[in-house]
This record gives sequence, structure tokens and C-alpha cells, in this order.
Amino acid sequence: MSDSADPLVLFMPSGRRGRFPRGTPVIEAARSLGVYVESVCGGRGICGRCQVEVAEGRFAKHGITSSGDHLSPWSAKEARYADKRGLKPGRRLSCSTTVQGDLVVDLPQDMAINAAVVRKAVDTRQFPRDPAVRLLYVEVSEPDMHAPLGDLDRLFQALERDWKLARPTIEPHLLPHIQPVLRQGGWSVTAAIAHDRDDEAPRLVALYPGLKNEAYGIAVDIGSTTIALHLSSLLSGQTIASTGAPNPQIRFGEDLMSRVSYVMMNPDGRPQMTAAVRGAIQALAEKVCAEANVSPADIIDCVFVGNPVMHHLFLGIDPTELGQAPFALALSGALSLPASALDLTLNPGARAYLLPCIAGHVGADAAAATLSEGPHRQDETMLLVDVGTNAEIVLGSSKRLVAASSPTGPAFEGAEISCGQRAAPGAIERVRIDPATLEPRFKIIGTELWSDEPGFVEASAITGVTGICGSGIIEVVAEMFLAGVITEDGVIDGRLAERSPRIVPQGRTFAYVLHETPERRLTILQTDVRAIQLAKAALYAGIKLLLGKLGNPTIDRIALAGAFGSFIEPRYAMVLGLVPDCALEKCGSVGNAAGAGARMALLNRDYRREIEDVVTRIEKIETALEPDFQGHFVAAMAFPNKLDSYPELVKVQPLPNRDSAGLIKAAPDGGENGESAAGDAGSPRRRGGRAGRR
Amino acid sequence: MSDSADPLVLFMPSGRRGRFPRGTPVIEAARSLGVYVESVCGGRGICGRCQVEVAEGRFAKHGITSSGDHLSPWSAKEARYADKRGLKPGRRLSCSTTVQGDLVVDLPQDMAINAAVVRKAVDTRQFPRDPAVRLLYVEVSEPDMHAPLGDLDRLFQALERDWKLARPTIEPHLLPHIQPVLRQGGWSVTAAIAHDRDDEAPRLVALYPGLKNEAYGIAVDIGSTTIALHLSSLLSGQTIASTGAPNPQIRFGEDLMSRVSYVMMNPDGRPQMTAAVRGAIQALAEKVCAEANVSPADIIDCVFVGNPVMHHLFLGIDPTELGQAPFALALSGALSLPASALDLTLNPGARAYLLPCIAGHVGADAAAATLSEGPHRQDETMLLVDVGTNAEIVLGSSKRLVAASSPTGPAFEGAEISCGQRAAPGAIERVRIDPATLEPRFKIIGTELWSDEPGFVEASAITGVTGICGSGIIEVVAEMFLAGVITEDGVIDGRLAERSPRIVPQGRTFAYVLHETPERRLTILQTDVRAIQLAKAALYAGIKLLLGKLGNPTIDRIALAGAFGSFIEPRYAMVLGLVPDCALEKCGSVGNAAGAGARMALLNRDYRREIEDVVTRIEKIETALEPDFQGHFVAAMAFPNKLDSYPELVKVQPLPNRDSAGLIKAAPDGGENGESAAGDAGSPRRRGGRAGRR
Repeated sequence: MSDSADPLVLFMPSGRRGRFPRGTPVIEAARSLGVYVESVCGGRGICGRCQVEVAEGRFAKHGITSSGDHLSPWSAKEARYADKRGLKPGRRLSCSTTVQGDLVVDLPQDMAINAAVVRKAVDTRQFPRDPAVRLLYVEVSEPDMHAPLGDLDRLFQALERDWKLARPTIEPHLLPHIQPVLRQGGWSVTAAIAHDRDDEAPRLVALYPGLKNEAYGIAVDIGSTTIALHLSSLLSGQTIASTGAPNPQIRFGEDLMSRVSYVMMNPDGRPQMTAAVRGAIQALAEKVCAEANVSPADIIDCVFVGNPVMHHLFLGIDPTELGQAPFALALSGALSLPASALDLTLNPGARAYLLPCIAGHVGADAAAATLSEGPHRQDETMLLVDVGTNAEIVLGSSKRLVAASSPTGPAFEGAEISCGQRAAPGAIERVRIDPATLEPRFKIIGTELWSDEPGFVEASAITGVTGICGSGIIEVVAEMFLAGVITEDGVIDGRLAERSPRIVPQGRTFAYVLHETPERRLTILQTDVRAIQLAKAALYAGIKLLLGKLGNPTIDRIALAGAFGSFIEPRYAMVLGLVPDCALEKCGSVGNAAGAGARMALLNRDYRREIEDVVTRIEKIETALEPDFQGHFVAAMAFPNKLDSYPELVKVQPLPNRDSAGLIKAAPDGGENGESAAGDAGSPRRRGGRAGRR
Repeated sequence: MSDSADPLVLFMPSGRRGRFPRGTPVIEAARSLGVYVESVCGGRGICGRCQVEVAEGRFAKHGITSSGDHLSPWSAKEARYADKRGLKPGRRLSCSTTVQGDLVVDLPQDMAINAAVVRKAVDTRQFPRDPAVRLLYVEVSEPDMHAPLGDLDRLFQALERDWKLARPTIEPHLLPHIQPVLRQGGWSVTAAIAHDRDDEAPRLVALYPGLKNEAYGIAVDIGSTTIALHLSSLLSGQTIASTGAPNPQIRFGEDLMSRVSYVMMNPDGRPQMTAAVRGAIQALAEKVCAEANVSPADIIDCVFVGNPVMHHLFLGIDPTELGQAPFALALSGALSLPASALDLTLNPGARAYLLPCIAGHVGADAAAATLSEGPHRQDETMLLVDVGTNAEIVLGSSKRLVAASSPTGPAFEGAEISCGQRAAPGAIERVRIDPATLEPRFKIIGTELWSDEPGFVEASAITGVTGICGSGIIEVVAEMFLAGVITEDGVIDGRLAERSPRIVPQGRTFAYVLHETPERRLTILQTDVRAIQLAKAALYAGIKLLLGKLGNPTIDRIALAGAFGSFIEPRYAMVLGLVPDCALEKCGSVGNAAGAGARMALLNRDYRREIEDVVTRIEKIETALEPDFQGHFVAAMAFPNKLDSYPELVKVQPLPNRDSAGLIKAAPDGGENGESAAGDAGSPRRRGGRAGRR
């Protein structure tokens, strides 16, 4: 019980506050307010995970005068810990420190306790944490002939006593190790307990002698094109390293439907593709571990997201049903299973969790992006778009959410474009066309120079200029439109051939020469423009359909997710009419939102329940069944002239960086910190520079 | 709501009764009274599992006049079922029949629906059933593009709707099969749901197209010497077949301690012995399936019991700790795990359950025997003794239970006896000595004839008379004592050499010649008598210790379990002072009580909870720590003269039958039927003729 005479304690950065009787341990005060403070040792002062800082001074806004002497004096446990492991000045162990007066307590975010160092700040967002797998240190009573309870049973007793843990089940592979580990640790052990859902029994998944003070998880976004993997500490929540690689299933088919066809045509097609993706994930996990100096055996939880076909193939499920009406998912709900059942060699007890799929064409990746961007957490109407072969669209707010998939085809990814190619070194990714001369300039993946800058020829010599990738094709079509090369109907204007040698006849239509060398000529054909028109009309029609379902509300924010969102400048999306009108500053890339959502589910099981619940509430619209879709589609074929609305279109925005492989490089971003951005019913965050390309 | 005007329904053989409004389905009436009626199809009238018979006539004792017209008329569902599958005269489907007047309803016990026929009535006890794995038939809604829930999710919805089943987890190996099985069954499937504990989520462990109407389980007693396995229908509860085989670990050591030593001396000793016992169980399961015309893939649940060393080796746990103080069990609690984790190739989703161990020397076999004999369910004081290398002793009643293990050594099993051997053809198992002439007669395993009957020489010629087994050594020592050949102190009386050539000098002591041929002479040496004295003193001292803990109550019943109990005549146990005094008719063999307890746990998960709870309440006594033990032991060395108390000692009791391999043959016993014998707080049942030898 607390009353108004009790000291006031404010926790930052969450801002949660409460009054607590003098003598309350700081960690207890935090937890009673729902502020997550890690602890492995359960208050014995040995793990150091529960460190806090006390901000000194007057905090007028909060009416608090906080100072160091409002905490209990330095304790023996803290002295011992500082002596053994070191403790930064100002840091206290919240388990061994009690409230003695008003306090402002900071939870530091740099809690790298162990050897593994954060190499790349891939995503510096901090989430409230409550991981599905926790490390719990206990001291187990020794065997007693008068009460001959088994060693495991006494371990469970200790877990119940110290951690209030209901009797767990044990993973069978641990059975031979219980006795040796207990004796090796001198009856002190750290139990890794997986407890995803409260309606399931906790599981003992690993057991370590003595204090084990670090464990890791991976969050994996299985894209059709690229697999992105993030390694996070389950204790600090920090992302330690990230990596990515092309999805090796590409050799069975570039796009989803060709992979489904491959399965239908080849009896061993499904097993081949399942083995390919699992092998690639295993290799990526080992690679990221090697980079971070972490043992794969310390990876003890995994979260996977992907579109329905990727999701099914990863699980070893034949995706054929997804290729034909009624597009039946084998399972749509979230799934929890042992990582070993997915042929992953991590910790033998490692768990795996897959987010739910929304519908037959709207996958766990869209669910993860929804979790990350949180339209359901805000009152504003948000449009969340993730474009691959299909566009996955989620629209709405806390009141109501609708979702659909629109058959954009692969044009936005550079496929079905005459000189299109995947995003790789040498591919044109940015284009500008001078409206006066119709002369282009461009950038290719692999150099920072524009094609009209000194040194470009030398810099591009390594790769050559090989083709045009998805973002490049959108930019060139948009620039052609802005320069008047194509009309609102999408026709390349042959009359301009008189003004510029860039416009050339091509059969009965015309084409635009983007780049020409003695070896190679890259041209944009009339059919390329048509392909983009069809794709953008499909996307727009899908959005329009969902808007109609919600009574055509004003869109307050547009979040462009994934590779599409990361590399397409929002203004071009507006120019071409990919997305409806919205204040330009309210339309932005949210990077690899699916990967961010996967990471959230890795670090906090509450997010799993949240997205499981949200997915059941999303209204799923099947575009193929909607009579209005075709009308929207036809109406959306033209390019709208919006130059007057967007005078800022001439401004060139900074680009995200790519590494030599064409993947986005991690660019530390110090500008965003603070707990619980995801918990805010707030704005989508622009994290284009940190997105992994899928 | 029911009132006194409602019809009265009485269910037999349980005797449970209640009043139900007219129109109540009979199956609902049964279930509301806790009478278990099987149903796979959930009331669709297609599985036929819920058959009942209505007893016609006046039941004066119950005040009921029951007749066929007190049931609703023959329904369309019943007509269809009878037409397709046949229904015996008088049988009704309780799901499709409603109460219309007073009824006496019989639950028939011969519900063999499918091909598998009961070959051997191994144990005809009927238990109230509620198996941990159930078959649930459901009709799943087809995919709907407007509500794109996954196929598995709609299956779970149907299970929730029709069976009130909480959302299950799914075994990963099933993931690829969901869609094909649903389509093969035309959206009708039978789900095998494992739901052992209510505090764990149910598991989908197998899925069958259409109606699957039979599933099996095995109950296995892993003895140090013999492994016994029973195959039961999880639906009818009937034991379909039983089998047994020597434990192949014997080649690593005859007794438990020599096996523990083997593990300590050989780095691969533990894996070798684990593989040996698992392989033997797999072979037995396949053998019993072949006999019963059942596919091993239809075995979907397993229960295992065994002493602590067998339990640990089966689980792949090093038993070294059990060989030395403080005799620490790796785990003592019950364990549930996939059968595949035990290298068993049954249904891929088959579950396994191991009963709890009581203490370091009192195993899951003693727990199972306790469950079967139920001292905790009765007010009488019961002594339950299972003798192997150690005697496992449980003593008490519903008020209080104590348990201990006493180090009898292997003498009772024929080991450490000069001419001792395992129970095998040719071994002497019964002995009588004429007190006047001191001439013996005996029986060997493999023939029904006594050695003094015509034809014995021919009948025994196949095997010869090779040695003496455990039951034989006890009988010969008891008969020697009754004939005055040995004194109360256990000394072979050399003075009798004058009277009989059977008494011969042997070093400084004398010996008794039991059998002599030109090739072989079988003698009982003074050291053999000493070995039996030491063993019986240890057993008696253990019992005495437990009696002391309970304030030396009168023993109302003695239940002799296992091979020891099956082959030793109780009167000899009394004569030699193996067990304390008790009315001879209250002392009897209960056969393979451990196997029976395992079968109970297989057929009703409530029994699992019951024994788990009882084991925590049993007070464990470690004889090695008890100062009184040594005194009891010394005092128990002598043979007590009880001839006056047991004049019936001359009567020869019928023997259980053995097959040619020395294993007990199944002998159908029609004398016991009726539900819930195990549920009675009643007497131990004598089932010597049905026991599997361990």
C-alpha cells in the first residue's frame, strides 16, 4: 500500500511513475509499474542486468527533486559486483537498492554485459521487453535421502520458489544433462525457460552450470528475393548484428508463382525449396554469429516472417493451394515449434515462432509490418503498403482495419521490364531527366557518383551499367512523365524525336534511350511503361477498394514498407499515382517494417499476442471477388498531373547506402532513441537508412 | 434442471444414477454422472462407439421398471448405422437415443468395433476411462475467400465448436499433411488429440481423413529381468494382446548394481544399455502388433514403468548417482514426452508417459503397483511388497503411506545360490519334502508333472533338470524347515545324515541333495540357506521399520506383487517369515501389479494425476539411515515356527501356467468383470494367473 506521503519514483524513458514506501527495492517499483527491468540472478546482485542510473536535480515538469541520497546507500552486493565486474559511475543495481526519497530513475540502454559487442546499430528502437525465453538463475537444494525428490524436481522447486514459475515441462534432450550440469555448477544453475503463452506450461529448454548471463535470438524476414536476419540479445534487447542474402529459391523461380509452379511440376520441388531456404537461414545465422563472436548454441529463440508462399515452403508445406482459388492457407494462425523441427542447428532447445498470416496473399510479413507500424494503435488513418510481386495493403486505425493484396506483378521489382534486373551492382537505381534537353543522368548501385559527375566512368567501369532495377524503373517513368516524354495516358510522345535523339522509334511505338555505349543500349520501351502502368493501377485500385470499405476516409499517413518503400522516393509514388494523395511529409519509407515487427515479437511475447489478436480483427478483402476492383483498376491506368500540388518534386532526397552486394548498409542513426516508440500511438518512423532489402 | 418427476436412469455396472428430463440423450445423462461413454464422432451416429443396452424388467432394489419403450424410438441415425455396420439386437446408440422413462442402462464391455480381435484376455479388469489421447471426428468448413482462415485454423474451430476443445498446438511433423488429409476426407477428419494435463494445451498429434475409429496404446513394465508389454485399445479399454521378453541389458549385468557398474566402467555403457532396452521395446511392440493385426502406426500413447535404474537407462540418463549415497534420482516426477524422443517408431505423434518414482530405490514400478492395488484408496492397512534385487515396500492406508526399499540382494531370484538359475525351462520351481522320509519331489518349468509322477523322466528329458529358480529356492528352504532339516537358526541338521542319504557333509557344514543323476547333483548348501536368511531378514526388517513408523498397526492385507508374488505361495512367505503375520486368506499374489498400474495410467489420465499426487504424499524411509534397521535385521534372521498358526500349510495350491519360454501364460479369467474395480476402496484382487513375469 502506498499513500501520498510516500516517495514519488519516475522511470525514464517510459515516463511511468508511482509512489512507493521507503525501503521498496527499485526493481520492484519498476516492475509494479510494468517497466521491464532484466534480471537473471533474481536479486542476488551477481548478474548485473538490473542496472539503473539516478538522475540528479529538480525535474520541474514532474515536481520531483531527485538526488543520489534518495537511494539506499551502496550495498555489499553492489560493492562485490563492482569489484568483480565493474560498474560505471552513477550506476546502481536496482535489485540491491531501495527507494528512500523522490527519484528519477533512468534505465540505461547500453547494457552490453558480455563479450559480444554491438557491431552495427541496425535498429536502435527500444521496445518494452518480455522475451518468450528467459534466463533464470537458481540455487538448488542438494539431494536429501530423507526427502528423495529428483534433481530435476528440486530444480523446479527452486524455480517456483525464486521465480514463481509454474511447473515446467522439460525438453527430452536435456534429460541426460540435468545431473552433470547441477553438479558442475555446485547446485547453482541458470535455466532457460521458454514461456510464450500463459495458457501453456513453461518449458525448460536449456540448462547451464552457474550464472549464464547472455542469450540471443534471431528475427528473420524471409523475402522471396532476400532473406534478412537480425541477431538480438534477449537480455539487453539490442540488435547485435544483421545480415542478409539472396533467397536461394530464386534458382527455382524468380517470383512466387513460378516457385509454386515448380512445386506443381516437380515431385521433389517442395522438399528442394524447403531445404534451400532452411539451409540459407542456417548459414546466415552462423555468419551473423561469427561476426558478433557469438556461439550459435546461444541462439535460443527465433522469429520468422514471410509472405504465405515463403511461410509455407519454410514450414515444409506444399504451397500449391496458394496458387489457385480459394487460395487456402494450410494454417493462418501463429505457430510455435522447436527450431530443430525446421532443421536449424542452434541451441538444441531453441524455439521458433512464426507470426500469423492475414490471408492467402497477405502474409506474416504484412502482419509483422502491421505490428511494427501499429495502425491499430493510433487514431489516425494509416495506409501501410508493402510491394513485392503482390502489394500487401493494410489500411485503417485503432477503430477498424482492412487488408488486401493487389496483383501488381513483378514490374516494380524490375522484372518484366525489357532492361530490368534485380538490385545488384551496375543496376541503375536513380534517374533524373532534364525537362529542357530530355537528357538523363543516373546513379548505379556500387558508386555514389551521378553519371554526369567526374570519375563516374572510372567508378562504374568495374561493374558496367548493366540494367535498371525496380526503384530505377519507377524513377525513370516518373521523370519521363514529368519531362513530358510520356503523356497522361502513358504514351511515349514520338513527336519529341525531332527535339532529342533520346526518343527513337521502336516498331509502331517509340522508346527512350536511357544509356548508350558501343557495347550496350538501355532503352525504356512503350511496353515497359505499360507494365508500370498496369502495376501501379493494380496497387491504386487495391487501395481504393479498401478506402471504399472504410467509407473513403482521409489518409493521415502513408507508410511505404520493404525494399519498395526504402528505395522509391515518396514523391515519385505520388507523381505516378501509386498511392492516393497525402501530405508529402506524411508519406514515408518505414524500411524493413516486417523485420522490425519480427524483432518486436522476438523481444516481447506481448507483441505476439497483440498481433495474433489484431490479425483476427483485420477485415480481409479478396480483390478478385470485389466487383468494384476492375473499375478502380481501369480508372487508375492514367498518370495524374500533380505537379501543381507538389512543387517540391524537384528537390533530390538523400539516398540510403548500399554495400557492394547491393544490400542496404546499416547506417547508425542516433537520432532516435527512447523506449517504446512502438508502444506509442504515434507516427510511422522513417528508417529508410536502416532497412534490409528483401 | 431435473426434478423428482423426471425419469430415473441407472447405469450399470457402475451403479451411478440420476433423474433426467424426458428427451435427454442417454450419452449426456451418462456423462453428467461421470460415466465414461466413448464417442469418436461426437453424436453423428457414425462411429458406433457409444452403444448401450437397456435392461428390461423390474429392478426392485432400485425401484425402477425399465423397458425398451422408455427409450426414444429407433432413430434414422441408428438405422443407418445398423444397416452399414450392424448393431447387435438390443443395442442402441446412446448419442441418438433419448430418455423417455425410467431406465437401467448397461454399458457393454465387448466393444470391438474394428478388425483387431481380442486374442488374449490378459487382464479383464475394466477401469473408468478417460485416455490422455482421444480421437475426435469433426466436419471442417471449407475455405472461404471472404474469411481466409487457414485450413488448420478451421479444423481447430471445428474442434472447439464440437468438442469444446481449447486451441491445440500441432506437432510439427503434421504441418505438411493438414491440407492433403482434409481434402482426402472431403473436409471430414478425425483428429488424435493428446491432452494429458489440463494445465497444458492439447496437442494435435495425428490427423486422419474421414472417421478413424480405433487407436491403441501400450503399457510397458521394464523389469531388470523381463520386459512385459500390453497392447490396449484406447477406445474400448480392452487389452488386445500381451507379450514379454528378457531384458537384453542382462548381457551387461544380471542385477541392477552390476549394470550401474558397467556404466561406470564403460564410456559407452549407458548408450549401449539405453539402445538395448529401447530396441527390445520396439521389437515387442511390433511383435504384439503383428499378433493382433494392428499397425504400429496406430499406437499413439505409451506408458512406461520400471525401477529407478531401468527408468533412467530407458530415458538415456546415467544411473551412476543411483549406485551411491545419496542415491539421487535425476528426476522423480512423472514425465510426458514424445515417444519418438525414446527412439520408438510408432505413430510419429505418439506420446509417452512415465509414472513418477517414489525414491532412489523405489521406482515407477512401485508407484504403478500402488496405483493398481490402491492402499491409498482404502481404510485397511495394506502391505504391498514387490521383490526383485531390492524389495520395494509400500505400507499404509488412505490415512498415511510409507515406503522403503530393502536390500534383499538377488537370492530370491535364484542368484547367489549355488545351483540357482533364472526361471527357464528345466529349472526347479516347486518342491515338497516328506517330513518322514526327507525325500523330495519337485516340478520343473516346462512340464506339469511332479518328479514322482509317471512320465516325468520322459517329459523332463528335453531340458533336463538344470537348476533351481527363485520360487524353487524359497520352497525348498521352507520345506527343509518344515521337515526339520534346518533348525530355527537356519542350520542344516547334520544328525539327520544318519536317517537319510539326502543329508551329506559339505566341508564343515552339511548339505541337502535335492536331485541327483549320473550327470548332475543339485544340492542345497548351508551357504544357500544363509543367503535366503539374509534376504528374508532384510525384507522383514524393512517391513518392520515401516510398521514402526506407522505405530505398528495390524496388517489387514498383504499384496505380493510381481514375479516374486506370482510364484511364491503366500504360506511359504509366512513360514519363512518373509512377511509379518496376517490371515493367510488376506495374503495373496496380485500378479504384475506394476503392469496393471501402467495400463490404468494408459486408459485414464485421472489415474496419472492420482498417482502423481499419492507419490508426493508417501513418506519415504531410507533404510540405510534408520538406526533401528540393523536390529530388526538381526532379529529376523531366524525362521519362526508358525506350524501351529498355519495348519493349512500342507494344502498344495494351483500353480500359474508358464509357457515353454518360462513366461507366464495368459489365462483368461472370466471371474472378474465390472467397471471400476480399481476405483473401489476395496480388496487387492488376486490375479496371479494373469501376471506377466518381470
